[in-house]
Amino acid sequence: MFVILVYDFEKKRVAKALKIARKYLYWVQNSVFEGEISEANYVKLKMELASIMDPDVDSVVFYTFRTQKYSKREEMGLRKGGEDNIL
Amino acid sequence: MFVILVYDFEKKRVAKALKIARKYLYWVQNSVFEGEISEANYVKLKMELASIMDPDVDSVVFYTFRTQKYSKREEMGLRKGGEDNIL
Repeated sequence: MFVILVYDFEKKRVAKALKIARKYLYWVQNSVFEGEISEANYVKLKMELASIMDPDVDSVVFYTFRTQKYSKREEMGLRKGGEDNIL
Repeated sequence: MFVILVYDFEKKRVAKALKIARKYLYWVQNSVFEGEISEANYVKLKMELASIMDPDVDSVVFYTFRTQKYSKREEMGLRKGGEDNIL
């Protein structure tokens, strides 16, 4: 499935969150990631983020799609991340 | 249709971008917005953002969906924005 991940972690935890997200997904911009992911890896990704997050302060939203057939992606301006631009 | 908007504007233009995005969508967190939008308003939103952006520096990505039937939304941690939490 395809997933878009956006997070908002407190500064001191951002580097850890970034490292985890990058293991599974492509960086898009700021705190946004996307990519194809297996169900198993999706569960792992959630568990790893949960293990470092403070749920009273930090925030994560996942949008998952069984198919990309009904969605479209449009960019404006500078392309910061993407498959061909992994940090 | 449903749209997720993520942007990365240079600091001096962020306030303007935020104001435009909020006119059409709900704030989710950081520089992420989502909501139902008409085709006409989607075009307006893109034009307004284009009018204030520096395309060599700023970046916007739109994910649009004809239907939400094939997508799922999951949250972890603090809920920062949303329909019932408009800034």
